[in-house]
Amino acid sequence: MEATTDTVLDGLADAERKALARCRHAVLGARRPLRLDCGVDLGPYRVAYQTYGSLNADRSNAVLICHALTLDQFVAEQHPVTGKEGWWDSLVGPGKVLDPARYFIICINVLGGCMGTTGPLALDPATGRPWNLRFPVVTVADMVRAQAELLDHLGIPDLFCVIGGSMGGMQVLEWAASYPRRVFTAVPIACAARHSAQNIAFHEVGRQAIMADPEWKSGDYRQHGTVPARGLSVARMTAHITYLSEQALQRKFGRALQDRDALGFGFDADFQVESYLRHQGSTFVERFDANSYLYITRAMDYFDLASAHGGVLANAFKGSPTRFCLFSFTSDWLFPTRESREIVHALNAVAANVSFVEIDSDKGHDAFLLDEPEMFRTLAGFLKGAATVRGLKDTP
Amino acid sequence: MEATTDTVLDGLADAERKALARCRHAVLGARRPLRLDCGVDLGPYRVAYQTYGSLNADRSNAVLICHALTLDQFVAEQHPVTGKEGWWDSLVGPGKVLDPARYFIICINVLGGCMGTTGPLALDPATGRPWNLRFPVVTVADMVRAQAELLDHLGIPDLFCVIGGSMGGMQVLEWAASYPRRVFTAVPIACAARHSAQNIAFHEVGRQAIMADPEWKSGDYRQHGTVPARGLSVARMTAHITYLSEQALQRKFGRALQDRDALGFGFDADFQVESYLRHQGSTFVERFDANSYLYITRAMDYFDLASAHGGVLANAFKGSPTRFCLFSFTSDWLFPTRESREIVHALNAVAANVSFVEIDSDKGHDAFLLDEPEMFRTLAGFLKGAATVRGLKDTP
Repeated sequence: MEATTDTVLDGLADAERKALARCRHAVLGARRPLRLDCGVDLGPYRVAYQTYGSLNADRSNAVLICHALTLDQFVAEQHPVTGKEGWWDSLVGPGKVLDPARYFIICINVLGGCMGTTGPLALDPATGRPWNLRFPVVTVADMVRAQAELLDHLGIPDLFCVIGGSMGGMQVLEWAASYPRRVFTAVPIACAARHSAQNIAFHEVGRQAIMADPEWKSGDYRQHGTVPARGLSVARMTAHITYLSEQALQRKFGRALQDRDALGFGFDADFQVESYLRHQGSTFVERFDANSYLYITRAMDYFDLASAHGGVLANAFKGSPTRFCLFSFTSDWLFPTRESREIVHALNAVAANVSFVEIDSDKGHDAFLLDEPEMFRTLAGFLKGAATVRGLKDTP
Repeated sequence: MEATTDTVLDGLADAERKALARCRHAVLGARRPLRLDCGVDLGPYRVAYQTYGSLNADRSNAVLICHALTLDQFVAEQHPVTGKEGWWDSLVGPGKVLDPARYFIICINVLGGCMGTTGPLALDPATGRPWNLRFPVVTVADMVRAQAELLDHLGIPDLFCVIGGSMGGMQVLEWAASYPRRVFTAVPIACAARHSAQNIAFHEVGRQAIMADPEWKSGDYRQHGTVPARGLSVARMTAHITYLSEQALQRKFGRALQDRDALGFGFDADFQVESYLRHQGSTFVERFDANSYLYITRAMDYFDLASAHGGVLANAFKGSPTRFCLFSFTSDWLFPTRESREIVHALNAVAANVSFVEIDSDKGHDAFLLDEPEMFRTLAGFLKGAATVRGLKDTP
């Protein structure tokens, strides 16, 4: 059976169809497949992406935004599935730090994702059946390779900036390490050069919750017409706690009760924090694919930039021409500041151009998605300086 | 149907039978039921407990150990179900800080528990059918009331010391607040005067994991011959992460692989930390009851000592004659030091006799169960001084 765009599209879930109808996509790897870290050759595969602004005549104003675990290419617009505003509206838009009038902004749904880019939802071109758990395990480096292939396809030689938080930050680091000549500035936010034991542990809990759900059906739930909703919801609830901070939860909810004046002496959601978490779990199920969650958490767990460079992180950046600007947040316990410092130390060890700011915030890991004026001011200054060096004019 | 000890015993699970065969128990509340915080009158109910040492002639050497969420009365001996050594062997035993040659040591399985004391496993005397989720929701104060009833039954007027960590520490605080004249010294370890929003959130994730398991059968799994093993295992895995610290996990496991030289590119346990967590989950299922886990986590969530005293924590200790000694651990993020400090501030506000030591440890919340020499030395000194005031001789 020969693979075509249509057979690839046949595997789509409803949410993915809605996403693809609202963004651009390319089918790559048909002639030259993507060699994945696991040894599998993947192709053809689809890459779904969104752009804002226009590429200038010099092709020097491209900014690549790398998204986090459960986010996607709908950075600065209403989401086609949830109807919510763009996840980085605070940073991207007219008059914002990343202004489409100035930059050509691209965000690509990651390999393994569920918003249009090929992942476990897609059909295996070799069999015509859905990949599900037969989809090869991908890595952050694989995600970045697919992104680089798309840029080749679009005729974009290099990037003025690669920016992202959390898993997006891991991709930024991988970009800088694998394609140093294609990255003028790199902005890794709230991330680490390797996933910690505690973070692997939390991901493993989430995966076990999904795989424990009998509706998961060893990954073949779509053919069975089921959804492992309860397992995926528990996975999301666990993860969501790690995105916040104890202080933020205490400030936001404390021990306040939900729609009642006294304890209910039962197992309903007595406390607001319980009700909030349940809501986070149930809404997540409507927008995210369970198998995709397994694959993308696995990619994060596998991320260890030093190990790919002889066990020495600094080697990943030797001779790097890239200008780095790192951010961390004081209350982020998922990717604490010391993990950003380790990256800074490695960059310093090879005399890279690096600045680093720890932002004072009680909002936990999620702070990277929020309106953090100090971060935005610092980033604006950093990009302005870099744009001058790059010879970028104010408008394309 | 009239309730007898036998009908209460009929509801036992195998593990509970083994536990009861190895400890003492009393059936209380037959004539005068226990009025629970939820308004239900409970009785008759069984209390399972273990003792070490002998009560002296003055009845002045009794030490009550209050156990944590998933622990039990088998403090200093091989566990009848798991075969593991006693959970506080490091503290309790000949030549140890709590020496049975000197003290009469009691540990009582909490109300709602699954090691012999009445909980959801037991039969409802009114119907003769298992309580399961029809068991009334109990509080830490209810647990303490049942313990006080047992002490009355045993003819023990007051306690030289009440000691415990985590939920055990909550019971210690409740004892000191509810029965100040019966508590000579109180040692709350690694605990808080109220359960925080983040801790409620983690408990809620665990409960949702259990209740999401179709084998849970709305709590009636034993009648259906099923066990919500996967849900309970996920609950335990989540909780277990919170008992450790990021440093301890990194030191113990880091990113070391399990029985392999390279990443497996799949969803088996590649990393040692995953294998370890899965093991924690599966062994827990063999020794603990899922409904009991729901009830006891709920009791902790409901704990808020200040709210029971007009919203002012200090009021809980006004005029207290008790000598307090508190411990916290630097790397405990479940019950961080600041929560112990809040208790100390409240005690200071009413001029109570209090000492407090924060122990430097990277072992997280679990440090309270481990050999922590500084804690043991401090505790030994504190108890020695109090024993002198109490007029306790070296042997009963």
